[in-house]
Amino acid sequence: MNQDYEKLMGCWERQMALSTALTLFSWDSETLAPPQADENTAKVVGILADQAFEATVNEEVKQLLERLSDAGDLDDSQKACVRKMKEDYEQTAAIPREENRAYSELLAKSAGIWAKAKKHNDFESFLPVLKKVISYQKKFAGCWQKEGDSLYDTLLDHYEKGFRSSDLDRFFGKLKEEIVPLLKQVTAKNDRIDKAYNSRRYPVEKQREFNHFLAEYVGMDFERCVIAESEHPFTTSLHNKDVRITTHYYENDLESAIFSTIHETGHTLYELGIADDLTQTPVGTAVSMGMHESQSRFFENIIGRSRAFWEPVYGRLQELFSEQLGDVSLDDFIRGINKAVPGPVRTEADELTYCLHIMIRYEIEKKLINEDMDLAGLPGLWKKLYEEYLGITPKNDSEGVLQDIHWAQGSIGYFPTYALGNAYSAQIYHTMCSRMDVEQLLREGNLEPIREFLRTNIHCHGYKKTAREILRDVTGEEFNPQYYIDYLKEKYTKLYSL
Amino acid sequence: MNQDYEKLMGCWERQMALSTALTLFSWDSETLAPPQADENTAKVVGILADQAFEATVNEEVKQLLERLSDAGDLDDSQKACVRKMKEDYEQTAAIPREENRAYSELLAKSAGIWAKAKKHNDFESFLPVLKKVISYQKKFAGCWQKEGDSLYDTLLDHYEKGFRSSDLDRFFGKLKEEIVPLLKQVTAKNDRIDKAYNSRRYPVEKQREFNHFLAEYVGMDFERCVIAESEHPFTTSLHNKDVRITTHYYENDLESAIFSTIHETGHTLYELGIADDLTQTPVGTAVSMGMHESQSRFFENIIGRSRAFWEPVYGRLQELFSEQLGDVSLDDFIRGINKAVPGPVRTEADELTYCLHIMIRYEIEKKLINEDMDLAGLPGLWKKLYEEYLGITPKNDSEGVLQDIHWAQGSIGYFPTYALGNAYSAQIYHTMCSRMDVEQLLREGNLEPIREFLRTNIHCHGYKKTAREILRDVTGEEFNPQYYIDYLKEKYTKLYSL
Repeated sequence: MNQDYEKLMGCWERQMALSTALTLFSWDSETLAPPQADENTAKVVGILADQAFEATVNEEVKQLLERLSDAGDLDDSQKACVRKMKEDYEQTAAIPREENRAYSELLAKSAGIWAKAKKHNDFESFLPVLKKVISYQKKFAGCWQKEGDSLYDTLLDHYEKGFRSSDLDRFFGKLKEEIVPLLKQVTAKNDRIDKAYNSRRYPVEKQREFNHFLAEYVGMDFERCVIAESEHPFTTSLHNKDVRITTHYYENDLESAIFSTIHETGHTLYELGIADDLTQTPVGTAVSMGMHESQSRFFENIIGRSRAFWEPVYGRLQELFSEQLGDVSLDDFIRGINKAVPGPVRTEADELTYCLHIMIRYEIEKKLINEDMDLAGLPGLWKKLYEEYLGITPKNDSEGVLQDIHWAQGSIGYFPTYALGNAYSAQIYHTMCSRMDVEQLLREGNLEPIREFLRTNIHCHGYKKTAREILRDVTGEEFNPQYYIDYLKEKYTKLYSL
Repeated sequence: MNQDYEKLMGCWERQMALSTALTLFSWDSETLAPPQADENTAKVVGILADQAFEATVNEEVKQLLERLSDAGDLDDSQKACVRKMKEDYEQTAAIPREENRAYSELLAKSAGIWAKAKKHNDFESFLPVLKKVISYQKKFAGCWQKEGDSLYDTLLDHYEKGFRSSDLDRFFGKLKEEIVPLLKQVTAKNDRIDKAYNSRRYPVEKQREFNHFLAEYVGMDFERCVIAESEHPFTTSLHNKDVRITTHYYENDLESAIFSTIHETGHTLYELGIADDLTQTPVGTAVSMGMHESQSRFFENIIGRSRAFWEPVYGRLQELFSEQLGDVSLDDFIRGINKAVPGPVRTEADELTYCLHIMIRYEIEKKLINEDMDLAGLPGLWKKLYEEYLGITPKNDSEGVLQDIHWAQGSIGYFPTYALGNAYSAQIYHTMCSRMDVEQLLREGNLEPIREFLRTNIHCHGYKKTAREILRDVTGEEFNPQYYIDYLKEKYTKLYSL
């Protein structure tokens, strides 16, 4: 083996171990750590992040990467690893080390502050920490910025390489043009669908039982996975043999946990599907946030809200909640879980309104990053946009501007990848249907060919291809959001007999 | 501040952060991580341990410690930190770095292998990993060994500084002489105590509820603490604001979880009681394993098995389990929880036989370390000693030689600290009773003065004093195991009307 490459991998392993430790601390603090642990633990996390920084950016790595850029004796995987480490090096080296450390310490505390602020509907208490996070994000974007890009373009590119505001303006423009009118038609006919069943009382213990079954049914492997609970459901991965999701149960909302479980299981399948020889290497990660989200949305919506999926499963749900669902037929249930009702909370949004929630965050983020917006005006702007696009007013900040953890975690420019993920998933689904009878497989309860298709075409490659390459290789064409628009139009026209 | 000292603390913080990460991985792997995670996670843990080693043993630390050994401008806390880091440096530097790394990787896997072996009663599958652990322990002891000490003396000193086999031979000799005959008298009269109630069916969910209440009653603060479940109950601490225990529930054994919860809560109080200005510093740890165990045993036995403790609490237990305990009076219950019956499992042992379990492990460990004992003979030797000292035969290896996790974790020479802890606790209790009416406080449900006594006399000092100094300062005399012998004799003579 190339000796420089071997040395580089030694450096990589230090980064990998430290970043896995940081992942575990983050998981632990979201799911288990006691309330007062924050401050002392933030100190630990800050020091580890600092060491991760030191392991990533140093003279030895720099020189090795330079020498390896033109090395002729590397195989494709090795080349991909060098390329990925170089990208990371350049991104990280651009940030002054002390800034990085202080930022990590800030993030270790901010999630706790956000959770309290949300609980007590107290935006004011979150404002100072949010100000700091945004100011860091602007600084970082400034360090990464390329000519011709806005600061926000830079953050978008950070999460979904190759996408700019211009792409998203076009994509969201299309959604506005075709989906907003559709939503109006749908809303006008909403009395056609009665989903009162969903807010009956569903004891959490039974929901937990069903969701564990459901996760396994969709493909979660409890030899390699864990389910816990947290305020905001998420997936995290230590490596391809340890992938964890959380969910959140509401006694008077059956759907909430069900679809977040299916969603996070979609993410999980991606992480489990990373090839054994890639996991824990520089390219042992999902290729992009958008592609990750395409997998979760694919299972949550295209699969998980289809009649075919529920045919073999609904009986079990009905049996478990015979009092609550005894009078609800499978067709009623399918109409119910697909009903489109504009509401204030993104994670509870139906398939049709979901991307409008993203559009609002996208517009706000552009202002937060590209303009010097006064953050005190954030709750007001939030309400205004919800009124404008969804025709509703959040009743308070907890279900308004405080609803998502993302900004508290420093993820700005991340939301748009959710919309891209939806578009990818419809484009991939179109191809999948040309290769197999997806509905028939679902009816038979045989999800393995579907998972296999995704595993071999998408998951297993890790970061060895780009998202655009993967999409092209699977579907035979470039990114094309029209599939998503058509999918929504067809589905909702049928559902509401428009 | 002394500039060398400031630099030294920079080095310390790296060690501290890495070792906190290792603690979290260990907690996670015992309580939550999925079964197949072991191998990849072991890699991460190995690398982190290697980095912790590098942070502890390096030329910079060595020189700083040398220069600071005679620095005149350090305060007492700073001096204590330098002293502790020097001890750690010498212990760690003695081990070749590659050995340390390989050993940590081994330990990351061994707990999982042990758990499976115990579950399937399969000593053979544990044997290879145990062999490796013991061989490492011998090697390490060889590196630390001082003139005149045996290899096992060296390991004993590692956990309880200043104690040698000769001390323990004397202590155990005393126990053999006075407690073994007492146990015989007690066993002969065992039909006097009926504790059939204990093996009635106690649903786990209700046990969980009671044990959470009990932990809080004894002093666990859920703002700073967490309870989870694992095969073998234990306490772990990330710092004084994040202390975690596990327990294990058995449906047909009420006592098991109750006394392990009280026990681990005793450990927890020690960790919570470390002063804020010491936690996360080199002296922010408990002073010794024996002193730690003295706190858990104090609460488990001296407090937790006393009539006065249960007077205000038993009603609640009885109410929760009215079917199972309705016919059991408080006095019956107190006799039941104090009944001494020789059994195979240490963690389920009563107060009187407990130290005999330790004596067996002590004798075996001496052979494992000082002699070249064939490990294949271990299950046989285990059975033989149980027959000899306790008059019973374990029915299989799961409840025999495989019952404890300690050896799988590389803790050899650790068990004897449990016996020392019992002796310390009786000596400390003797002093406490001269300062306050402990029984009266318990009857009133007012445990705070008891905790306060321990916090200010023992916990808060961390590692700033030695265990012997703490014992001397609290009790006014040197270590004296006679208090423990007398305590047992008085208690059991009364209980069985001997």
